[in-house]
Amino acid sequence: MDNPYVLTHKTPTKKDFLDTTEFDQSEILDMVKISTAVRDYLKSGHTLNSLYHKNLAMIFEQKSTRTRVSFEVGMEQLGGHALNLAPGAIQLGAHETIGDTAEVLSRMCDLIMARVDRHESVLELADRSTVPVINGMSDYNHPTQELGDIITILDHLPADKPCNKVKVVFVGDCTQVCVSLMMITTKMGMNFIQYGPPAKWLGDDFLKIGRANNQLYGGSVHVTDNPAYLEGADFIYTDVWYGLYDKETPKDVYMREFYPKYQVSDEMLAMTGNPNVKFMHCLPANRNEEVTDSVLDGPHSIAWDEAEKRLTAQRGLLLYFGGVAAATLDEIKKQKEEK
Amino acid sequence: MDNPYVLTHKTPTKKDFLDTTEFDQSEILDMVKISTAVRDYLKSGHTLNSLYHKNLAMIFEQKSTRTRVSFEVGMEQLGGHALNLAPGAIQLGAHETIGDTAEVLSRMCDLIMARVDRHESVLELADRSTVPVINGMSDYNHPTQELGDIITILDHLPADKPCNKVKVVFVGDCTQVCVSLMMITTKMGMNFIQYGPPAKWLGDDFLKIGRANNQLYGGSVHVTDNPAYLEGADFIYTDVWYGLYDKETPKDVYMREFYPKYQVSDEMLAMTGNPNVKFMHCLPANRNEEVTDSVLDGPHSIAWDEAEKRLTAQRGLLLYFGGVAAATLDEIKKQKEEK
Amino acid sequence: MDNPYVLTHKTPTKKDFLDTTEFDQSEILDMVKISTAVRDYLKSGHTLNSLYHKNLAMIFEQKSTRTRVSFEVGMEQLGGHALNLAPGAIQLGAHETIGDTAEVLSRMCDLIMARVDRHESVLELADRSTVPVINGMSDYNHPTQELGDIITILDHLPADKPCNKVKVVFVGDCTQVCVSLMMITTKMGMNFIQYGPPAKWLGDDFLKIGRANNQLYGGSVHVTDNPAYLEGADFIYTDVWYGLYDKETPKDVYMREFYPKYQVSDEMLAMTGNPNVKFMHCLPANRNEEVTDSVLDGPHSIAWDEAEKRLTAQRGLLLYFGGVAAATLDEIKKQKEEK
Repeated sequence: MDNPYVLTHKTPTKKDFLDTTEFDQSEILDMVKISTAVRDYLKSGHTLNSLYHKNLAMIFEQKSTRTRVSFEVGMEQLGGHALNLAPGAIQLGAHETIGDTAEVLSRMCDLIMARVDRHESVLELADRSTVPVINGMSDYNHPTQELGDIITILDHLPADKPCNKVKVVFVGDCTQVCVSLMMITTKMGMNFIQYGPPAKWLGDDFLKIGRANNQLYGGSVHVTDNPAYLEGADFIYTDVWYGLYDKETPKDVYMREFYPKYQVSDEMLAMTGNPNVKFMHCLPANRNEEVTDSVLDGPHSIAWDEAEKRLTAQRGLLLYFGGVAAATLDEIKKQKEEK
Repeated sequence: MDNPYVLTHKTPTKKDFLDTTEFDQSEILDMVKISTAVRDYLKSGHTLNSLYHKNLAMIFEQKSTRTRVSFEVGMEQLGGHALNLAPGAIQLGAHETIGDTAEVLSRMCDLIMARVDRHESVLELADRSTVPVINGMSDYNHPTQELGDIITILDHLPADKPCNKVKVVFVGDCTQVCVSLMMITTKMGMNFIQYGPPAKWLGDDFLKIGRANNQLYGGSVHVTDNPAYLEGADFIYTDVWYGLYDKETPKDVYMREFYPKYQVSDEMLAMTGNPNVKFMHCLPANRNEEVTDSVLDGPHSIAWDEAEKRLTAQRGLLLYFGGVAAATLDEIKKQKEEK
Repeated sequence: MDNPYVLTHKTPTKKDFLDTTEFDQSEILDMVKISTAVRDYLKSGHTLNSLYHKNLAMIFEQKSTRTRVSFEVGMEQLGGHALNLAPGAIQLGAHETIGDTAEVLSRMCDLIMARVDRHESVLELADRSTVPVINGMSDYNHPTQELGDIITILDHLPADKPCNKVKVVFVGDCTQVCVSLMMITTKMGMNFIQYGPPAKWLGDDFLKIGRANNQLYGGSVHVTDNPAYLEGADFIYTDVWYGLYDKETPKDVYMREFYPKYQVSDEMLAMTGNPNVKFMHCLPANRNEEVTDSVLDGPHSIAWDEAEKRLTAQRGLLLYFGGVAAATLDEIKKQKEEK
């Protein structure tokens, strides 16, 4: 990221953000660059209208707080507007096919973001849509969380530590967030470990993606139930064990499997041997289940900063996939030079 | 439409858009004029703020995709904002009378749009409201669809064909959309045919409206189950047979009545003998029931363009009934002359 | 309110609006001042963007028409945006603690407004939030209604009548609106009476607040079932007896307790002996239960103006707690002087 005002790649036209495996490291770094440049510019008291009068259709098949608020605020701060098509407001695939909805929304809106029950739905949306589609989480992955998380990690990296020396440990179940964290950390050439019970380890299909990244960018990927792997961790990350969906394994079954071994506690942080270890959580948290109050509210926690980075990332993604990232960086550079 | 920047009529103050029968042909053409002039201006890359800081209250007693998205985007593109009062958010006539809700919203908002279960509700809203009320569909009619449809038809008219020679065939059930299409095509002096089973024909009350239009503007209106009437059609239009409401005739009863005779298929299009016949649908569609995939996705289909015209029409209606249509045309004209 | 463009107090930073008892009379008058100055400025055709690109998170645990529409329109008219987190969209205290939600929203939004089931929830939100929190009604009080109501009362005061001579009678049940009206009228040094059945009188805890205000500002507070107290009333105010919540005392029980004695009718207004008595209602109304049609729609009713004042008050509160009230008054003053 030599020059923060120039992107390595051209801003794409009608390109979707469904899965970070479709982008190489330098493209992801361009998304980081536009996200952080705009964040810094707005924090210094400036305003931007790069998406003036542009409209984002947000389709939610599931409830959402962070994704919804960050996209809606992000559009607003860039001069545009986000439409909240809440669960039930549009029944994807019910009264009309997903493709037909995509075609209609493409005629009225400039961008589409969708949180879907099944990954196939967001693929079908992207297939028929003539405007860019952003995946706001599916049962497969959570790429906008990935971009927020990698910005958080890069911001909190030990000074001068190269990515290939960074160790990120995800503790717990192989949720979409675990999958996504593995994808993005290995894309950056970092060392990723999932520490959890063997029955909940990432499958070979996923590990293959990580290993392909290792080949290209260095780093490593491991799944383990051996706490020795916690040693030297720079980041400990966890997610809920259960409780976000209606039909799922009951709480007591999950507790037996994960508790107390995989609860992130002060003791677990101490096992890293790293006095500067950082704690991350995608939130919402079930306090004193997957993480103790003392960790979530303690000095190692960067979970709230991580939540704020969701907004940082969404603005960057909206500008990047909205085709105005380069123009926005130009404008920021020009404004700065005039002073 | 000689001069596209001058309206024939004065922009009204506190006039509602409940039913197109309350407007004569030249008033409807003024609405078409402002709609298409603004569409062309925005498509050429300009922005407008004619409804700067104005607020539209959108009341939905039923779910909506096209009407909601087109009004919300339309307000946004004109510098204003639309409030989505979703089904259940305001229970019209439940916790307070419709009239009381109208009075309160009039004190806070600049325009009201309502999609209602019963036409009486939108009449009561308009009666007590002191700001303009737009009917976003009732059990009686769908006038905003009418304006979008007539813009679509005028855009796709065979070159130089006078309205009195144009033939529009609606195939299927006498839904609100069928009623509305009859009203607006006869208002333009076109020839309207409903082709469907006799039990589902438009009643005399409706036909009387069409015949009154025929007297004033030429054209004709017919209901028939004779496929010979398809011959020479310029436009074939259909709507779902069932499936949009909770309590309704079951699917198999409708299928027996309409299928296969009234399904719009390639064969039916061929029966028009017109190689340039256009296919329209208000959407959502139940694919392979009232229309085949090959027609909806085929070269005759202008259904997606028709969906986009909903946005074209809503912007025009918001400007017209918001009392700023003439001022907006002046501004567009001035901007163009300066270049 | 000598100089309408200068506030008595400094605009606070991170101060919440949870309960008017936390503010003294002169602070409340500052809120009235910014509210009415902005109202007059906008009514004269000007626009303001004091909250340009600022975002308000609106959390609703209960349905709302007036509070929601007034805050959403208020933000829009000031250049910002309000996010509608409808009942069910965010389950406060369900998937995550209220405090965690507060912390996350604080990282993305500039202000939070919450209508909550239990007052403790809004206290907890304010405790963890790092941005100002506005109480949009709890089971304890309704302070934004208070500000709208006191603006309404001040606007409709008999000419030159000092506050200490003004008599405000609330008729009916000790709802949150009754509590709030008592708090704000005694804060202004007015004479407050609740006229209702003894079982529904304000409790000693509430009366103590009123009496403390009497000590500081003059005025008086009484609860009574004696209609003689109606005499000389300047304002008669009522609220529904039942019907806004799911689990509550059935209608017939309430009717036996309140009807007909506590129904506001023309006869009751006549009992005040004041030909200029004004009728107020927070709305929604159950017509011909707590108030007759002839009163609500009659010449004494200022209920619709009172509804409009909700918007007047919300704009003032957003500017005041958003920390830009003084700057906005400066801007208005400057604009006026330039003409």
